[in-house]
Amino acid sequence: MKNKGLLLVVSGPSGAGKGTVVGGVIATSDKFKLSISVTTRNPRDGEVDGVNYHFKTMSEFELMIHNNQLLEYMEVYGNFYGTNKLFVEEMLDNGYDVILEIDTKGAMAIKKLMPDAVMIFITPKTLDILTQRLVGRATETKEQIDRRLSESARELSFADQYDYIVINEELDKCIDQVANIIRSEHCRTKHCSQIIVDFSK
Amino acid sequence: MKNKGLLLVVSGPSGAGKGTVVGGVIATSDKFKLSISVTTRNPRDGEVDGVNYHFKTMSEFELMIHNNQLLEYMEVYGNFYGTNKLFVEEMLDNGYDVILEIDTKGAMAIKKLMPDAVMIFITPKTLDILTQRLVGRATETKEQIDRRLSESARELSFADQYDYIVINEELDKCIDQVANIIRSEHCRTKHCSQIIVDFSK
Repeated sequence: MKNKGLLLVVSGPSGAGKGTVVGGVIATSDKFKLSISVTTRNPRDGEVDGVNYHFKTMSEFELMIHNNQLLEYMEVYGNFYGTNKLFVEEMLDNGYDVILEIDTKGAMAIKKLMPDAVMIFITPKTLDILTQRLVGRATETKEQIDRRLSESARELSFADQYDYIVINEELDKCIDQVANIIRSEHCRTKHCSQIIVDFSK
Repeated sequence: MKNKGLLLVVSGPSGAGKGTVVGGVIATSDKFKLSISVTTRNPRDGEVDGVNYHFKTMSEFELMIHNNQLLEYMEVYGNFYGTNKLFVEEMLDNGYDVILEIDTKGAMAIKKLMPDAVMIFITPKTLDILTQRLVGRATETKEQIDRRLSESARELSFADQYDYIVINEELDKCIDQVANIIRSEHCRTKHCSQIIVDFSK
């Protein structure tokens, strides 16, 4: 029997650098697969369909909901975001570890549906550092920054719902740490039932 | 505030090579401290007091029990074995990760006393490999081998009580894996309460 892969849920406040961390982790092993979210929002400059998101129209998205093709979905500021159920299940069945990079709302929904999911929260060391990073983005208006700050505070309030909290102080260390956590989780007794069965024969 | 260290409990059947693994893990970081058990049994050839065990007379051991100086203790084949409470507590308070290499009986006692202890079970991949290793020890009589085999079966029946099961197939990989588990456990939310407090300020 092929061992099933692990489902990893990665969240963190805006400004934590979780996208970069997840990209780095994916690059460390061909056993890791990134789940690409489905969304109804318009692509931003440089975003590629099937790479950053699967971009869908509202009616395509509604059809996916209707056909039970989404593991979870939700609305954020008028746009819908969801997780492709078939992709996640097929990859897990084939022994890949699947990483979902989603916000805390989506993460809590996944945790309820799949209690064995490994929940990882990525964050800068202090709130001050996070604020500096968000304010330092010169491309954004004051309102956009304020909105991000209040979103971040909201995201941070969910940190204690996660299995792991990883500080992103140095990118390489943070990537190593997350990859370590995945390797360690493969040794957790609850994911090793096959071995216990082997010994009882 | 200095972060408290983690208590790691390592067990496994005779022939799993757990002593060598623990030695290798200790050598990877000066943040790891090995707890040396106290025992009333006689030193074997080559064993050094304070290195392999703290060797005590029965009356010295009884005094330690009386003075509440043992975290746990038990009798195995007429000899007593115990864990030095003061050493473990001082090292943990000073931020060291303390590794106890003890049998499953002692481990279950520690788990009850200190539910935050990280429980790691080290084992060969199959019962056949374990049997070969034990039988292959040419220095032992058939009775000694049989006794070890039945002890091993008993130890293995406790594997599912541990947080992690690590297969010792290649020594270096096994050492890496245990060291990884310790690093990952430092990111577990239950050991990171200080960070959550920092953010809520």
